[in-house]
Amino acid sequence: MAGGQADSSIAGTLELIGDRWTFLILRDAFRGIHRFDELQHDLGIARNLLTDRLHKLVDHGILAKHQYCAHPPRYEYRLTAKGIDLSPALVALKRWGDKHLAGGEPPIVFVHDQCGEPLDQTFVCWHCDQTVTPGGIRSRASR
Amino acid sequence: MAGGQADSSIAGTLELIGDRWTFLILRDAFRGIHRFDELQHDLGIARNLLTDRLHKLVDHGILAKHQYCAHPPRYEYRLTAKGIDLSPALVALKRWGDKHLAGGEPPIVFVHDQCGEPLDQTFVCWHCDQTVTPGGIRSRASR
Repeated sequence: MAGGQADSSIAGTLELIGDRWTFLILRDAFRGIHRFDELQHDLGIARNLLTDRLHKLVDHGILAKHQYCAHPPRYEYRLTAKGIDLSPALVALKRWGDKHLAGGEPPIVFVHDQCGEPLDQTFVCWHCDQTVTPGGIRSRASR
Repeated sequence: MAGGQADSSIAGTLELIGDRWTFLILRDAFRGIHRFDELQHDLGIARNLLTDRLHKLVDHGILAKHQYCAHPPRYEYRLTAKGIDLSPALVALKRWGDKHLAGGEPPIVFVHDQCGEPLDQTFVCWHCDQTVTPGGIRSRASR
């Protein structure tokens, strides 16, 4: 992954989601935890910090606010398509932790919904029709 | 990616690298920027913060310190195998930014070193021998 020219895509992404609480809120959203009080309880985060992070994620279109109770008004926060697109990043962070922190024995595994077998995450070259390891990646200017 | 049981792998990973400066230092390491002054110049980070983040990454075995000059003593910071294992996470963050922030026109693309064609990053089910989209992922307890 050698490179030269500056690339703003990672920096830009981290501007939006590059803080630990934000990642953990997103992880919980993928796990089906959508409501303020449930998030607050699961994460043990201060309410003002949770409010701030949720507003930021809604402003950037990563979560969408849905009313689930009218009296009193209550809202939940669900991943948008843009938010769901973050799943490869969260899966990659989990896989690294599984390997390097959990001794290769994670409590949770991601499986293919059709067969229930564990999923792999990989780089693919469709031109060569083969998977590629990190050592086989190079970067170049796109134009 | 529905789930239930708590999973510490993402949280643990974020304990180590879940801050924006740390991600950017790792991005630079993948881009071949290894020396303190080069990192400081590229990132515009305060020297005390850079020192702190580098020490943390070395302590956790993600970067390794190598002396490249004896008089005066100067060091550079290179990714270990454990650090290189973070490349899928950084690539996933970049790809999200490419799609959602750079309008699908990133300045840098990752290519296969053997053929120079752009790489894809995907989930694979080896049991079914097919790629799987995020909608086809489920989570379950591993034991």
